[in-house]
Amino acid sequence: MDTVKKICAGDIRSASRLIRDLEDKLPRARPRLKELFIHTGKSFIIGITGSPGAGKSTLTDALIGEFRKQGKTVGVLAVDPTSPFSGGAILGDRVRMLRHAEDEGVFIRSLATRGALGGLSQAAGDAIHVMEAMGKDVILVETVGIGQQELDIMYHAHSVIVVLVPGMGDEIQTMKAGIMEIADLFAVNKADRPGARQLLTELAQLLNATPPGEGGWRPPIVSIGNLYEPAGFAAKTAELARLVHEHHDHLILSGRLAQRMERKARMEISDALRACLLEPVLRRLAESGELADIARRVQNRESDPYSEAEAVARRFLKSGETS
Amino acid sequence: MDTVKKICAGDIRSASRLIRDLEDKLPRARPRLKELFIHTGKSFIIGITGSPGAGKSTLTDALIGEFRKQGKTVGVLAVDPTSPFSGGAILGDRVRMLRHAEDEGVFIRSLATRGALGGLSQAAGDAIHVMEAMGKDVILVETVGIGQQELDIMYHAHSVIVVLVPGMGDEIQTMKAGIMEIADLFAVNKADRPGARQLLTELAQLLNATPPGEGGWRPPIVSIGNLYEPAGFAAKTAELARLVHEHHDHLILSGRLAQRMERKARMEISDALRACLLEPVLRRLAESGELADIARRVQNRESDPYSEAEAVARRFLKSGETS
Repeated sequence: MDTVKKICAGDIRSASRLIRDLEDKLPRARPRLKELFIHTGKSFIIGITGSPGAGKSTLTDALIGEFRKQGKTVGVLAVDPTSPFSGGAILGDRVRMLRHAEDEGVFIRSLATRGALGGLSQAAGDAIHVMEAMGKDVILVETVGIGQQELDIMYHAHSVIVVLVPGMGDEIQTMKAGIMEIADLFAVNKADRPGARQLLTELAQLLNATPPGEGGWRPPIVSIGNLYEPAGFAAKTAELARLVHEHHDHLILSGRLAQRMERKARMEISDALRACLLEPVLRRLAESGELADIARRVQNRESDPYSEAEAVARRFLKSGETS
Repeated sequence: MDTVKKICAGDIRSASRLIRDLEDKLPRARPRLKELFIHTGKSFIIGITGSPGAGKSTLTDALIGEFRKQGKTVGVLAVDPTSPFSGGAILGDRVRMLRHAEDEGVFIRSLATRGALGGLSQAAGDAIHVMEAMGKDVILVETVGIGQQELDIMYHAHSVIVVLVPGMGDEIQTMKAGIMEIADLFAVNKADRPGARQLLTELAQLLNATPPGEGGWRPPIVSIGNLYEPAGFAAKTAELARLVHEHHDHLILSGRLAQRMERKARMEISDALRACLLEPVLRRLAESGELADIARRVQNRESDPYSEAEAVARRFLKSGETS
């Protein structure tokens, strides 16, 4: 059986290998992704974002449990900030999630953030497509949501949960606009800690000052207390799971889902164009040693980056297509 | 007098207008940047990064004061996380810096983070070049350093200060690799708060477990206390200013500066290639309505993003140059 058929049959090893190959940009990976694309588009994709230490992994873990109770299969993609040089995702406090590792209905993978060329959103989109082809009912995508690229990844999702914790009040202020435009639901973690009331107040004020979003949706706030009081914690995460489904229903009923999916398609096309137009040219220049020559000329101020790039564009783009 | 001459003479209005035009990608901006490039490369560029609420702006403000005392002219570029849709930087707690607004030797500008195409590093690099051409002795570049793009901006700098505060211990763990590879100096802010000792201990352990960086440099840690005890605060920020100059001297003496500047040049070239190769093609497709057609086909699963991007590449790249 070929790789794509195996993935569509849910084979974990084939899926893992393809995700790794896509991340490493191996030439054999892209034809497979193209082949399996027809099998995508049926999963419910949920984005989870927030600062480091906000408790995203604990929440993701709890949501996995909720969806499994409902009999749904789950894919999890964790995008980690790591060294721009060494690559490689850090599992960090994801250890908790390992309790799901034995469960065949759950498939968990990490992506490292690497490279300066904006390939992160593309790698995430590719990995999500693989999980969709596997037939996962729900896919949870977790990022540290402060950077632009990490926020962009949320555009791959249907519904986005922003996780906040007390004591990060500054952040609400700083992130105001960005958070309000990306969040479909708010989860306030560690809501039993000092500062929780202030955070909830500020958040409510911000919500009141913001016009309702797409189709009249008003992001609900779920405040989640102590992980070590299991009954209360479970009730709150169940509520969050219910509300995120409610948001999905709202998108469908209000006709807004198609709009979001168009935005997602445009982002994927622009990511793919980067891979098919820009990266081959950069690779060619690096392999021939020209990139080093150009860098030397720029460093010595014999030339400037834009003049060099324009010359490259004239050389590689068909005439009349340069700018 | 033409714009570039005015900028080189330090004219604030011309410089501000060019930075804004570059950010807005107006066609008239690029020729000017190319023209002034020859006047760049003489400033000392210092990157300052850390989480929201870590006190980066307070520190930047204090460093401005230090460098001004030494008779140096200062440029400040603040890169803010904002809405991916609406654009526009939020001044937030930068109000403090306004006390320098009357000082002719200080030039402060904000950049908003916008767009999913990785243009942030480019916009920052361009703005830095304008400040260099203005003849600023020192340029402080401040970002919220958790995202990949925001970290990438630090490659524009000669020396990077990572700002930490107590109570963000989780972050050190999460960011371990990324922070250790980017930081030339650590500033621990609010070091009079609970948790400071723990943070300093963890940081020291991490430094001890990490091999020394380029040319044997060991990132020093400066712990900075209460802003409202002015004498102690001033002494500590003076120490930080001294150490950052020491790092610059170290880079020059160890021969590592050239290496960093090559990395910077390569990044600028790849940013410029994106602007000259990818963006014109995307613009063309958007203007002709083809991008909407492609998005529709991808949404309907009649096609996939990579097949579409490959077809675009065949159309725009000279034959033999596609991948």
